[in-house]
Amino acid sequence: MSNSISILGLGLMGQALAGSLLDAGHQVTVWNRSAGKGDDLVARGATRAATVAEAVAASPLVIVCVLDYAAVRALLTDVPLTGRVLVNLTNGRPSEARETAELVAGRGGDYLDGGIMAVPQMIGHPGALILYSGSQTAFDGHRDTLATMAEPRFVGADPGLAPLLDLAMLTGMYGQIAGVLEAVALVASEKVPVAEFTSTLLVPWLNAMASTMPQLAEEIAAGDYSTDVSNLEINRVGVANLVLAFEEQGVKPDLLLPMKAIIDQRVARGHGAEGLQSLIEELR
Amino acid sequence: MSNSISILGLGLMGQALAGSLLDAGHQVTVWNRSAGKGDDLVARGATRAATVAEAVAASPLVIVCVLDYAAVRALLTDVPLTGRVLVNLTNGRPSEARETAELVAGRGGDYLDGGIMAVPQMIGHPGALILYSGSQTAFDGHRDTLATMAEPRFVGADPGLAPLLDLAMLTGMYGQIAGVLEAVALVASEKVPVAEFTSTLLVPWLNAMASTMPQLAEEIAAGDYSTDVSNLEINRVGVANLVLAFEEQGVKPDLLLPMKAIIDQRVARGHGAEGLQSLIEELR
Ligand SMILES: NC(=O)c1ccc[n+]([C@@H]2O[C@H](COP(=O)([O-])OP(=O)(O)OC[C@H]3O[C@@H](n4cnc5c(N)ncnc54)[C@H](OP(=O)(O)O)[C@@H]3O)[C@@H](O)[C@H]2O)c1
Ligand SMILES: NC(=O)c1ccc[n+]([C@@H]2O[C@H](COP(=O)([O-])OP(=O)(O)OC[C@H]3O[C@@H](n4cnc5c(N)ncnc54)[C@H](OP(=O)(O)O)[C@@H]3O)[C@@H](O)[C@H]2O)c1
Repeated sequence: MSNSISILGLGLMGQALAGSLLDAGHQVTVWNRSAGKGDDLVARGATRAATVAEAVAASPLVIVCVLDYAAVRALLTDVPLTGRVLVNLTNGRPSEARETAELVAGRGGDYLDGGIMAVPQMIGHPGALILYSGSQTAFDGHRDTLATMAEPRFVGADPGLAPLLDLAMLTGMYGQIAGVLEAVALVASEKVPVAEFTSTLLVPWLNAMASTMPQLAEEIAAGDYSTDVSNLEINRVGVANLVLAFEEQGVKPDLLLPMKAIIDQRVARGHGAEGLQSLIEELR
Repeated sequence: MSNSISILGLGLMGQALAGSLLDAGHQVTVWNRSAGKGDDLVARGATRAATVAEAVAASPLVIVCVLDYAAVRALLTDVPLTGRVLVNLTNGRPSEARETAELVAGRGGDYLDGGIMAVPQMIGHPGALILYSGSQTAFDGHRDTLATMAEPRFVGADPGLAPLLDLAMLTGMYGQIAGVLEAVALVASEKVPVAEFTSTLLVPWLNAMASTMPQLAEEIAAGDYSTDVSNLEINRVGVANLVLAFEEQGVKPDLLLPMKAIIDQRVARGHGAEGLQSLIEELR
């Protein structure tokens, strides 16, 4: 079944979203603030709207994916939303999602907030996930269309929930990327081929360690800080070694330093025999 | 074939190593600085040595796994190593591995440095990896015995190489754990069940993102900082949102702050259109 969808914002992500909807045979209307984006989408069958109001009028389902929520609010000023479902896939905070949901409701629209758990290249392909929260009716009514872009998962009626989970997952990702950047910088200091190191050693190791994280989370949930894996004192010595090695190799360990600081602090507070999961106490 | 191996150090890791060797039917001699560890190993057939010298005399292959290299050097003082292969699986720096290799060579021994890429629970099971560097002859001669503990991978004659790769992989792991701890703390602020979040959302997402890291490493190797994934300006806004969300939820974002700082700095230096891989420049 072909449905009509409008997309506001044709950055890297907006273009990927629109492209996946076009590929599935939907009628897609596109709008972008500045000219020069979306020609390719128009060539593939999308209709270009001259204004936001025109784009919103064109389809019952309106997807917005721009820089931030300030931009979302600004571009919706004075645009009637009655009978429209606004799906906001812009990255933002729970508090902003709740505010935007009220703004949309006040204009007669229905609101879904979404967190895109994918890079543009994954959109339309297996493995891509979008978390949604807000109007369950809107989600149920458009689920099949939304499924074109990525596996849709409804996480709750509070519009802030999808952004909360999204930001938490991004937090995990930024931690992982920080670690990878530092790791690559360290091995590069000895002329080790970094791409081979990353694919044959680092990524399998990160996957192995990721598989132990649910246990860590369970221990956190249970408040169980004992360990038969590795204690904080051994980790303190290991991280101190790491930081010294970075210095010896002439690489900045900056992204690791707060991890060192909280391990040192937790050990200094007398918790050296506990496991890494007990570090959560230092973040509260 | 049953071989004779001595293990110095019966912490969480030393016990796991000794246990896997016993399970494979080898003759294992164990020593630990303080009493009260290793009773279980002795019950399973290990021989307890009263001194380091006695443990070293008992087997041609001697594995040491203690707190740090200072401890390794101290416990080998005055112990003859002629005809022995010393395999040091203690966590340390490349410079320390090279020093220790010289010390062992000076005493007539052969040296292998090793980096254990596993937690104790993985030892003796598929997925566990130990990187070795130093004497190729020692490695080739004991490869099958070493394979009992974990897949053995020889990475080069420079004894510093295994620790370099080990520390780099640990760096990636600490980044990942830092991200997971912050992510769990964030979702816990809204009473989201953290174990379910971690296993059903966070870990699959980290695995998906890890699979993109080899491309990031290739771009770093090629000095290609262009992106069709996500640019630094969008990441700058995303991370700023993250940090604000942590503050709104009453959680400390400390482990993320240097990542925010280097993204901000890189954008301020005019590289907002580049991809995340270009952050490597800020670590050099
Ligand atoms: N790329 C990813 O991997 C990824 C993954 C998940 C989520 N996201 C999220 O998706 C959103 C878009 O990211 P992106 O990668 O597509 O970014 P991008 O390529 O930099 O594009 C940004 C888009 O926002 C528009 N925009 C910026 N300020 C605006 C304003 N004041 N009014 C109207 N439009 C404005 C830009 O319009 P102009 O063309 O006129 O500048 C452009 O269409 C962000 O919230 C991002 O966090 C991205
Ligand atoms: N656990 C892991 O997940 C893991 C993973 C990879 C690598 N490693 C590495 O393996 C090594 C051991 O870690 P672990 O987890 O087994 O630590 P652990 O459980 O804390 O045990 C530490 C061991 O070191 C000994 N030791 C400490 N100082 C000593 C000294 N001055 N002289 C002689 N022995 C000394 C301790 O002896 P006492 O019993 O007398 O205190 C104990 O046997 C570390 O380098 C660690 O980084 C561990």
